[in-house]
Amino acid sequence: MKRHALQNTPASPVDTVTVELGDRSYPIVIGTGVLEEVGPRLGALVPGRSAAIISNPTVEKLYLNRVVGSLAAAGFHTTSVAIPDGETHKNLAWLTFIYDRLLDARMDRTSTLLALGGGVIGDLAGFAAGTFLRGVPFVQLPTTLLAQVDSSVGGKTGVNHPAGKNLIGVFYQPQLVLIDVETLRTLPRRELVAGLAEVIKYAVILDAELFVLVEENLGRILALDTELLRHIILRCCALKAMVVQRDERESDYRSILNFGHTLGHAIESLTEYTRYLHGEAVAIGMAFAARMSRSQGYCKDETVHRIVGLLKRAGLPVEVPQELAGASLGLAIEGDKKVARGKVKFVCLEDLGRTRFVHFTGQEVAEFVARVRQGTS
Amino acid sequence: MKRHALQNTPASPVDTVTVELGDRSYPIVIGTGVLEEVGPRLGALVPGRSAAIISNPTVEKLYLNRVVGSLAAAGFHTTSVAIPDGETHKNLAWLTFIYDRLLDARMDRTSTLLALGGGVIGDLAGFAAGTFLRGVPFVQLPTTLLAQVDSSVGGKTGVNHPAGKNLIGVFYQPQLVLIDVETLRTLPRRELVAGLAEVIKYAVILDAELFVLVEENLGRILALDTELLRHIILRCCALKAMVVQRDERESDYRSILNFGHTLGHAIESLTEYTRYLHGEAVAIGMAFAARMSRSQGYCKDETVHRIVGLLKRAGLPVEVPQELAGASLGLAIEGDKKVARGKVKFVCLEDLGRTRFVHFTGQEVAEFVARVRQGTS
Repeated sequence: MKRHALQNTPASPVDTVTVELGDRSYPIVIGTGVLEEVGPRLGALVPGRSAAIISNPTVEKLYLNRVVGSLAAAGFHTTSVAIPDGETHKNLAWLTFIYDRLLDARMDRTSTLLALGGGVIGDLAGFAAGTFLRGVPFVQLPTTLLAQVDSSVGGKTGVNHPAGKNLIGVFYQPQLVLIDVETLRTLPRRELVAGLAEVIKYAVILDAELFVLVEENLGRILALDTELLRHIILRCCALKAMVVQRDERESDYRSILNFGHTLGHAIESLTEYTRYLHGEAVAIGMAFAARMSRSQGYCKDETVHRIVGLLKRAGLPVEVPQELAGASLGLAIEGDKKVARGKVKFVCLEDLGRTRFVHFTGQEVAEFVARVRQGTS
Repeated sequence: MKRHALQNTPASPVDTVTVELGDRSYPIVIGTGVLEEVGPRLGALVPGRSAAIISNPTVEKLYLNRVVGSLAAAGFHTTSVAIPDGETHKNLAWLTFIYDRLLDARMDRTSTLLALGGGVIGDLAGFAAGTFLRGVPFVQLPTTLLAQVDSSVGGKTGVNHPAGKNLIGVFYQPQLVLIDVETLRTLPRRELVAGLAEVIKYAVILDAELFVLVEENLGRILALDTELLRHIILRCCALKAMVVQRDERESDYRSILNFGHTLGHAIESLTEYTRYLHGEAVAIGMAFAARMSRSQGYCKDETVHRIVGLLKRAGLPVEVPQELAGASLGLAIEGDKKVARGKVKFVCLEDLGRTRFVHFTGQEVAEFVARVRQGTS
């Protein structure tokens, strides 16, 4: 992490975390107003001068002009592709729509794809970038807290399938992640809170100090204290970079980032991606994973109380809805792509900052969910 | 290249070429009857014991039982997915069909995908393997000469788009390429000849000695002399491995393999993949590239005569059909994914075994085609 000013641009000071992956290394640049620096920054990274900005109508209205202006000033010819809002559009049909638009606009292998938006846009645009002409340069411009602290970093891209979340995708690293903390000012409160679920995830699994920081400053975070948010985003990006460097393709260690996600993905899938935001489903999953860890004797009551308490104070859901707590939940979990030979690798908790992997079948997890709901765990 | 017998199986002696790509290195195993060794060979490479065989109805009828039997004997649970014959099915719709079948069969990230067939099946199954659950183990079992000498090696996978060939895809290396020369006995003559076009390509761009071998033994090749075919396939695989090791992702050098392909792809696209087999379109492209190289003063008359003469003797087409030699050809070439900033990198010839890259616009190439047809070049 270093703080420096970009040469030859009227840039604000920024923080930079480098994800070290050999010839696929790239910088995460975090600052205020940095969206306007995308042109010169990209120009310094790629030889081509054409770019396609993948976004959604809401984000386009707010930030597209700024991004296009910066790119045009740096000599880029641009085109933009809008995907309707929401997780239900992260599918193969909309991926095909992107390919068609890129070909219409005569994008070639020197063209850059930019994802301007949240996790849905980042995953979809990243998959398009990784597969269009067998891979073109890619830049993440995350505009939600969730994308800024988690999904824009690390190279996971993909689309959902009716059978489950992110079942089709590739690992494809961007050339640059440019995080403009200013964009959080226009983020709906519900989305900000959902993003906070991933911040709490990083704190719970890797960084007890960060957990305390969030516990003690929740009000300032929700009031959008820019300096505090910058610090938190930087911390989460550094943690994610560390994990990804150690295990880019999720052979083993990277799975800790799935804390809360096994149940979370199943809940999203059963509710067809419409009832919960991703972070909300993950919050339910984390509360459950903490309770299950306690019932297995892995962690203390107090740890569970602090985690569930913080999630609740943030305004996140922490209970599996009654109507989902049946056998279909077990099946949905077994549809998870982390399942190998019938068992899912479940991330349990030993303490704040300490996890362990335990293998369960989907039905075993579903039975735990039923028991936790009945208050026996 | 080494010749050895597989331990603990009643194997015939085989030739092995290793494609050296660090942690993505893999063996190409070439032999007679080796399809029956797929079970023990795969079992030694992957921890999982489930597999999906992607094939087409014609090849399934001939070889599926053999492959399933070998896998079952080695403890694999298998499922098979049939894609209709032909290049027109190498598209996103059939890719989606494969994903659906894999999920129906509850394949997980330890499952292996096997491509049993020619180039279409290999490209489609490879793309599915590279993107299903963000990548699962993959094995190539090429059953056509074209796939055995070219498309099964090197990790290029993908599907066509109405706008052009292989526009969507990923680089994804297999764990194993297992080439059973016996399968050529059931290959239609037209397909064998089309495969020979790629053999001639390797000879022309990289190996004058191989060119002489094919010139002098064309009759024996077409009569399916197994030992000679083994030798030729081994030679082509070794050449391809050398090229891929030097430039896996086609930054520059690997483009020499596109000799004859720029025009070939455009012709395939304009005739909607139904009139010519890939190898036939490439033959037309190679004859043109040789003639154009001569007209530019890069190579001698004699070189062109030998190349065009050999292609003709093999029974391959060498002329661009009149109705395609117009402006639409220029546009089709400009749709090629090798186009960067309006120019295509065209592989020209200096001599047998010696090439040079020249950059042209699609229209420039189309004008050359028209002139060559009018006999002015």
